[in-house]
Amino acid sequence: MRLFLLLLAFCVAPGFALADPLPSWRDGEVKSGIVAFVDAVTEIGGPQYRAPSERIAVFDNDGTLWAEQPAYFQLLFAVNRIAKMVEADPAVASSPALKAAASGDFKALLATGKEGLLEVVTVAHSGISVDSFQAEVALWLEETRHAMTGRRYDELIYQPMLELLSYLRDKGFKTYIVSGGGIHFMRVFAEEAYGIPPEQVIGSMSETSYNVDGGKPIIMKEPGIAFLDDKEGKPIAIDRIIGRRPILAGGNSDGDLQMLEWVTSGEGPRFGILVHHTDKEREWAYDRKSHIGKLDKALDMASKRDWSVVDMKTDWRVVFPFELAQ
Amino acid sequence: MRLFLLLLAFCVAPGFALADPLPSWRDGEVKSGIVAFVDAVTEIGGPQYRAPSERIAVFDNDGTLWAEQPAYFQLLFAVNRIAKMVEADPAVASSPALKAAASGDFKALLATGKEGLLEVVTVAHSGISVDSFQAEVALWLEETRHAMTGRRYDELIYQPMLELLSYLRDKGFKTYIVSGGGIHFMRVFAEEAYGIPPEQVIGSMSETSYNVDGGKPIIMKEPGIAFLDDKEGKPIAIDRIIGRRPILAGGNSDGDLQMLEWVTSGEGPRFGILVHHTDKEREWAYDRKSHIGKLDKALDMASKRDWSVVDMKTDWRVVFPFELAQ
Repeated sequence: MRLFLLLLAFCVAPGFALADPLPSWRDGEVKSGIVAFVDAVTEIGGPQYRAPSERIAVFDNDGTLWAEQPAYFQLLFAVNRIAKMVEADPAVASSPALKAAASGDFKALLATGKEGLLEVVTVAHSGISVDSFQAEVALWLEETRHAMTGRRYDELIYQPMLELLSYLRDKGFKTYIVSGGGIHFMRVFAEEAYGIPPEQVIGSMSETSYNVDGGKPIIMKEPGIAFLDDKEGKPIAIDRIIGRRPILAGGNSDGDLQMLEWVTSGEGPRFGILVHHTDKEREWAYDRKSHIGKLDKALDMASKRDWSVVDMKTDWRVVFPFELAQ
Repeated sequence: MRLFLLLLAFCVAPGFALADPLPSWRDGEVKSGIVAFVDAVTEIGGPQYRAPSERIAVFDNDGTLWAEQPAYFQLLFAVNRIAKMVEADPAVASSPALKAAASGDFKALLATGKEGLLEVVTVAHSGISVDSFQAEVALWLEETRHAMTGRRYDELIYQPMLELLSYLRDKGFKTYIVSGGGIHFMRVFAEEAYGIPPEQVIGSMSETSYNVDGGKPIIMKEPGIAFLDDKEGKPIAIDRIIGRRPILAGGNSDGDLQMLEWVTSGEGPRFGILVHHTDKEREWAYDRKSHIGKLDKALDMASKRDWSVVDMKTDWRVVFPFELAQ
């Protein structure tokens, strides 16, 4: 009897069955579309039901799960690491790009062009073991603040997307990151920030080597890119690593176009989400002409392919988790 | 009261707590070592306890989970596919190696050396979409029989290893394949044969391309090897795809040496298993001088590194699942 009362109390608790799984999303087409899709694929016996093993959702990271202005955070990490390396050994500053990075002079760094940026990223991401590299990323996250907001970089994650990730997992989805960012970089914070474990983080990869020194094996990051997880690279990585086509994909830029195209053109129910950065008050507003997170062709394709475009300004009640504590 | 009786009946049912999770393994050092390791890492509050997220186990496939004689089964598939391709278009037989494969003349094929074998494998694994390729593998598994046993290739899997995989999963482990075999090939049977889903199958990868034809995207297998998952490639792939060090690894050849070394040299409790093919009655007996599955350096290293060596003849009560039905 006691058990029965307890069960009854639980079931009739106010809002129990009606709790909103996406409280930071304003009611509207995008939110109702997400919920309708999830309801459809989880309705046992329903015409659009998909087994849990097929409920795979993939998300870009930069600009989709966390912010990416004024520059990709991983590039800011790279510049910071070069500065530390040069402090320890001035000989590291052996080129105009490395010199510019070491002095934090972004204007001079950008003037060195793509080659200069690639050099900075390569030097910052090689000649170090994976373990040591990840310890440095963790330290950087602890020590460094995003200049425009004064926040830790891993605080600049999107509350509505955190809710979406949790909601999907609660409904039996496996959530993956599929990002142009580096795997070793993202894995440092992805589990704590997003609840996404290392083995569900797919990204760009530097070359790595396996070395045994005095019986102790070590994996070293080497110069050179083993895989660039951007544009066509995203569906290719999904095929290689996940091995089946996800049924939901989220992105925010033209770099995500092929991933959304691949995911949403499969058979059965599919869902594509594009985060459109439209909120210059709470975040940033940029799209077709941005150097970072350019959203142009994918925005044109959204209506043709029936992708849901998130208007950050109107669709999101809250942008960052720290707003909730304020 | 009824519930209580039911619970009691369940708890005292004969063998309930004592059921052997590895019935096809004979009692001995290997079996007791496996069970002691699993008990230690799952003992809540124990000194060697590892959280479920760290319970990752990796296994080679050829010679570890299924047989590999008289040749890697994937090579037999490749030769079979070349024969079919030549039947459809005789112009495909454009080299001595392809001609030899098309006529099923293994002696002539081997005489073309490594280059000839690589050509056969490349031609058989490219110029086709991933979907069509996997449909062909599935058809080959249906239609073809292993000449020496008359069995389907996916019947030549090891019953004791199936039990080990299930046992580990029951104890909260995530089980992975990390094999020199191809990802697209292995994923066709890995889930049904071993209970290992596509996203936990790591292997060698051909180049692939993303193409959109009439709005329909397709992933094509291309000539060229994108990644060779053998020797040093195994720990490198584990780092790239899983992103943390497994605590148990199983292999059977020198190609698995670095994987076992990487896994068992980490901190805390670790377990390495080497399957030694010693049973020429029920399976095959080969090791140091074999062209297929050569086990030489890894066998020497086993005692130094404290890896458990499975003596198939004495440690396995049953080799293949079909023996149980006889």
